Amino acid sequence: MEQFLATAKQGSRVLAQISGAEKKRILREMADALRANTMAIIEENAKDMREAEINDLSSALKDRLLLDESRIEGMAVAVEEIAALKEPVGRVLDGWVTDEDLKIEKVSVPIGVIGIIYESRPNVTSDTAALCFKSSNVCVLKGGKEAESSNVAIADVLQAVLKKNDLPESLISLLPDSSREGVSKLIRMDKYVDLIVPRGGAGLIRYVSENASVPVVKHDKGQCHTYIDKAAILDNAIAIAINAKVQRPGVCNSMETLLVDKAIAATALPQLKSAFDAAHTQLKGSDEVQAIIDVAHATDEDFDTEYLANILNIKVVEGVDGAIDHIVRYGSGHSESIITEDITAAERFLNSIDAAAVYVNASTRFTDGGVFGFGAEVGISTNKLHARGPMGIEGLTTYKFKIYGSGQTR
Amino acid sequence: MEQFLATAKQGSRVLAQISGAEKKRILREMADALRANTMAIIEENAKDMREAEINDLSSALKDRLLLDESRIEGMAVAVEEIAALKEPVGRVLDGWVTDEDLKIEKVSVPIGVIGIIYESRPNVTSDTAALCFKSSNVCVLKGGKEAESSNVAIADVLQAVLKKNDLPESLISLLPDSSREGVSKLIRMDKYVDLIVPRGGAGLIRYVSENASVPVVKHDKGQCHTYIDKAAILDNAIAIAINAKVQRPGVCNSMETLLVDKAIAATALPQLKSAFDAAHTQLKGSDEVQAIIDVAHATDEDFDTEYLANILNIKVVEGVDGAIDHIVRYGSGHSESIITEDITAAERFLNSIDAAAVYVNASTRFTDGGVFGFGAEVGISTNKLHARGPMGIEGLTTYKFKIYGSGQTR
Repeated sequence: MEQFLATAKQGSRVLAQISGAEKKRILREMADALRANTMAIIEENAKDMREAEINDLSSALKDRLLLDESRIEGMAVAVEEIAALKEPVGRVLDGWVTDEDLKIEKVSVPIGVIGIIYESRPNVTSDTAALCFKSSNVCVLKGGKEAESSNVAIADVLQAVLKKNDLPESLISLLPDSSREGVSKLIRMDKYVDLIVPRGGAGLIRYVSENASVPVVKHDKGQCHTYIDKAAILDNAIAIAINAKVQRPGVCNSMETLLVDKAIAATALPQLKSAFDAAHTQLKGSDEVQAIIDVAHATDEDFDTEYLANILNIKVVEGVDGAIDHIVRYGSGHSESIITEDITAAERFLNSIDAAAVYVNASTRFTDGGVFGFGAEVGISTNKLHARGPMGIEGLTTYKFKIYGSGQTR
Repeated sequence: MEQFLATAKQGSRVLAQISGAEKKRILREMADALRANTMAIIEENAKDMREAEINDLSSALKDRLLLDESRIEGMAVAVEEIAALKEPVGRVLDGWVTDEDLKIEKVSVPIGVIGIIYESRPNVTSDTAALCFKSSNVCVLKGGKEAESSNVAIADVLQAVLKKNDLPESLISLLPDSSREGVSKLIRMDKYVDLIVPRGGAGLIRYVSENASVPVVKHDKGQCHTYIDKAAILDNAIAIAINAKVQRPGVCNSMETLLVDKAIAATALPQLKSAFDAAHTQLKGSDEVQAIIDVAHATDEDFDTEYLANILNIKVVEGVDGAIDHIVRYGSGHSESIITEDITAAERFLNSIDAAAVYVNASTRFTDGGVFGFGAEVGISTNKLHARGPMGIEGLTTYKFKIYGSGQTR
């Protein structure tokens, strides 16, 4: 493992020499190669599908695993889109001249070697490899065991393109030891690995965060709230609440708990109930909610649960400060929204809530690299440092200072 | 400990409500209070000095520990300078409107609770507390055992000012359990602590990096190199090399190893030797260096050692690529310099070397927040992520996205 990662690290130097135009051309070749090898990839995917059958995986999991012609075409298109992104390396982020007449440029550079740990969907293999290659990072990929044959097939196709271009295959590789021990080693190899991005279940993310000596950009849970203030336009509020919960309940930026200002609870809750009933949402409420509408009881644990399903907690709170109190206690720092026409309440909420994305009068569902206009999304970070919230390809770069002198000494 | 840190975390909310003007006023009161309590601080410092005597600390350590009137005046001035910095919170870093007509603002915000672990110099207590307060962060300070009485006295003065302004003392506090176990707990309390900044010896930094679950911005070693290319103006090269080694050998941005292009070794080395001899530098050289000038032998271990003293390794390398090879192997990613008039060699060096600061024709000694114009320096980060190189007060902030809608749903 150490030798493998040392080789990966050496690859960084090779990548530093490849121009943006070359990277673009090679990524397009990779997209073509994925298309050309569609049948071979599907054959290998069939092995994973048979295993999935034997292991009796859920139909949802099997669907995530399945590759067919159109999905592979989608993977190729995604690689082409990444190829077309603006060159992320070498951007001059800042620049100035010091009192000593040193010319300083702050320039974006690759991070180095990035380890990515993910599950199920085999398209993550080509997406991630392309994002890392575009940003001149070496990637070490550790996909899910259930997708192993598919991932190997995809990586083989990408590595063949590297080889054809006289580049080391180590620039894009799968972790050779994909066991838990392999992961344990990977996340402690700070000598060779510069960043770990875990994408997967809460258990995996917790394990990686607690045990890594390599820095981690993680995507933790999205315990998102919407607060309907007494100064809200109620129709807007209901439309936004429905959208935040119902449009796609299984994603991290969907709402888990709706907070309603006590001052309007008596009128708002019945209307909310009929809207959510129509959307087949399972509702749970605090005592004060239950006093107004007929819903199940929401426990303390419920308020702490990311359902990722069409289930919603509702709580009555004392104005914007009550909402802030609740979110401070239960929020995961992902996305929080206030619905109000009151500028003071809105600013108080925006400034007090410590989350990656804070909204006024819009659905939390908008927290997304695509919506934000980032081109490609590496993920949504719940880290506070390095990258926070939707993370574009710039999140795969860091910076250095280039200093141009003419013989200066101190 | 958990209760203590939970209280610290709550302090973040209080800080979020204090305006920039108020912070400025309170910091100036802190500076005044340090002056007003000069005698009390000196009395407590005397206790530490007596302990230092009993424990037979080196005179260098004792000098770092000592507080007198002028040093306390210096601490007060430093706090006033921090007060005068531009408000670091609420800067709009970016802003745009999306296709959905959402107005997005990327705004700087405090990180939250910052744990700072440091040694010896008691002025770090007031400097760091002021930097954190100015950036609306709660700080938990863990100073060295040898400076305990001084640190308590300084923290008491600052806390009294907080109290006078009806602010919780938890905004600036010393870690109650200052044992190794206390530190172990602190660095794993990611529920309450958002960042750890260790400032101290290599052992402390390694321990914190390996065991923290809280993100760490560390200042690791500065194994800095200067490479004299065959296209260098030799007089410039010698002046820069002398400056990089001799001006202040005990700091991280001083040079530890000088690399000399083989093409000019025979002429350059004798001149370098006489210049370094005049500066009383102890020289060690590779075999090829020893073939030209009379110096001790530099071992592999020497090339990996941060001397922090007037000792220098010299090595002959094959042009810029030889220099890059050496730096890739031994560099710590801090500061590296090439001395050359050859633009191609310079660009190759600047682009290939993965370090926080890369120089052409200037001394590595310039890697410094003051020189860079950052106003106050939190430290020099050898992290690749979050903050790299000289870190101004902006390094104590992160960002969030504020999104202004008008009823948008997805």
